Amino acid sequence: MAEHFHEDSVAAVAVRIDVEHPDGLIFDPHQPQLRVTDLGAVRGDGVFETMYAVEGRVRKIEAHLERLARSADILDISIPPAQSWRAAVELGFEEYRTRGALPDELTIKLVATRGVEGEPASDDPAFAGTYWALLSPVTEAMRATRGQPVGVTLLDRGYDSTAAERAPWLLLGAKSLSYAVNMASLRWARQHGFDDVIYTTSDGQVLEGPTSTVLIVTRGANGARRLTTPVLETGILPGTTQGAIFTAAEKAGWELGYGPLTPQDLLDADHLFLASSVRLVSPVARLDDAELAVDDELTAELIDLLAEDLPVNHPLD
Amino acid sequence: MAEHFHEDSVAAVAVRIDVEHPDGLIFDPHQPQLRVTDLGAVRGDGVFETMYAVEGRVRKIEAHLERLARSADILDISIPPAQSWRAAVELGFEEYRTRGALPDELTIKLVATRGVEGEPASDDPAFAGTYWALLSPVTEAMRATRGQPVGVTLLDRGYDSTAAERAPWLLLGAKSLSYAVNMASLRWARQHGFDDVIYTTSDGQVLEGPTSTVLIVTRGANGARRLTTPVLETGILPGTTQGAIFTAAEKAGWELGYGPLTPQDLLDADHLFLASSVRLVSPVARLDDAELAVDDELTAELIDLLAEDLPVNHPLD
Repeated sequence: MAEHFHEDSVAAVAVRIDVEHPDGLIFDPHQPQLRVTDLGAVRGDGVFETMYAVEGRVRKIEAHLERLARSADILDISIPPAQSWRAAVELGFEEYRTRGALPDELTIKLVATRGVEGEPASDDPAFAGTYWALLSPVTEAMRATRGQPVGVTLLDRGYDSTAAERAPWLLLGAKSLSYAVNMASLRWARQHGFDDVIYTTSDGQVLEGPTSTVLIVTRGANGARRLTTPVLETGILPGTTQGAIFTAAEKAGWELGYGPLTPQDLLDADHLFLASSVRLVSPVARLDDAELAVDDELTAELIDLLAEDLPVNHPLD
Repeated sequence: MAEHFHEDSVAAVAVRIDVEHPDGLIFDPHQPQLRVTDLGAVRGDGVFETMYAVEGRVRKIEAHLERLARSADILDISIPPAQSWRAAVELGFEEYRTRGALPDELTIKLVATRGVEGEPASDDPAFAGTYWALLSPVTEAMRATRGQPVGVTLLDRGYDSTAAERAPWLLLGAKSLSYAVNMASLRWARQHGFDDVIYTTSDGQVLEGPTSTVLIVTRGANGARRLTTPVLETGILPGTTQGAIFTAAEKAGWELGYGPLTPQDLLDADHLFLASSVRLVSPVARLDDAELAVDDELTAELIDLLAEDLPVNHPLD
């Protein structure tokens, strides 16, 4: 009985948003919900965010909703107002409570697609596409990897560092559903004995991971500790987790810096990390053939910074 | 009554393929069919083909099925055997006949996704993902554009001409569902007064259109007519329509050539065309600021070559 309850309480909860349900409507994610003509499903033509909630509070939700809106703007997809997304997430929390218990930690995915070609779901542009939130408990496996050292391979993203500025149609800087390359890069890494990937430009600049932001820690001549992340002009996503760490670190006396960074900068740094919303912070112990120093206390310190829940200096500001 | 019949007969027909229905099962494409956890829907993690059928015969189906299998192989997605796809298409035709009439011309989209993460649809790898065929009548609007001159803008695809060979994780050469950039490029073109796009590499080679293959016609010193298309090594899709034209053209005495091509080669050619399965052949009348010569007889001749229904010299051979 207890086990059955457990099983129910850890199932995923899904909430759709449409013009008749601007504050969300619960649906069963095990049942089909999307038509095969939805452009999200057949063209990767949509945007998403992956958020992290602890005890019913979504971390840095403003930064995620701003980035979702920015991605949608880049793809020219209209999406519901922030209030709808917030209400849908709250409805998801409420559904868990009704079922018995809200899991301590949830991954929350927000997705917006362009909808079905030629058949807007509503005359109201804010609700013309397909929109949903999917809440699922953070697995034990995911929790266990947090803060653990990872081996990373550098992979060429194909673009040079000026592509984002000269070719806006490439959608660099938008978190779109067209993620097949990111998934293929991770498969490639795993097939070659690595846990993760850091992309570089074809002209040798460091970009980001397929699902994470790159951070390095260095110590300046004056002994001050410094956090540095690559510049956004190369077309990387503005990292919400990196933004939250920066905000809290600055308050704690760290110096902050923004690239450009080269692979040599990563090797020369005291420490290298990947930051992402649910996995939080992963120290890189190996970058291709090079072993890197890992400092468990520093990793814990960065993870603690994320728990401070300060208003994020949004990276888009 | 006649109109009602007409409306029914022109609706789309959808056929899914799964381990229990390896020869297909009809479903209503207006009803939801995909879960929101399907990796095709949320990661663009799948592959597709768009085919063209005339009077119940799919043109160059072997070339499409081979390319689908090749794309799936690049993405490491297992798909049903060719026999299943053929049977599903036949079932779709039969459904139209049952409803009253098989439309003269159909667009047939084949889609295969990786399926739901961690929940293979079957233990049989060939049926572990999500698979369907969607048949829909070719619209009057589409028919009307066939053979009509188009204005095209050259857009930088971001990659250089060696990216495909050095970075297989970029999935160049696979027809994946991650098509947001292709769609954005077409929107960009239309916003700037063009009908279509030809991509170039960052180092100035001609690639392909977002949904078409580039062909040029030149006349050699000996007066022989020559068809040339870009080389595949740059990571473009092997064009099934280009392949069919080449097969028939060679039989009709044309010379054939394979790039590399530069934008200047396009301007210097006697004629420039975009080839695709349903739109067939479109002469390019304007390439950015340059006016190009259009020859209606030549366009008609190339379209006629496509009707010959010869076994295609498959471009992958």
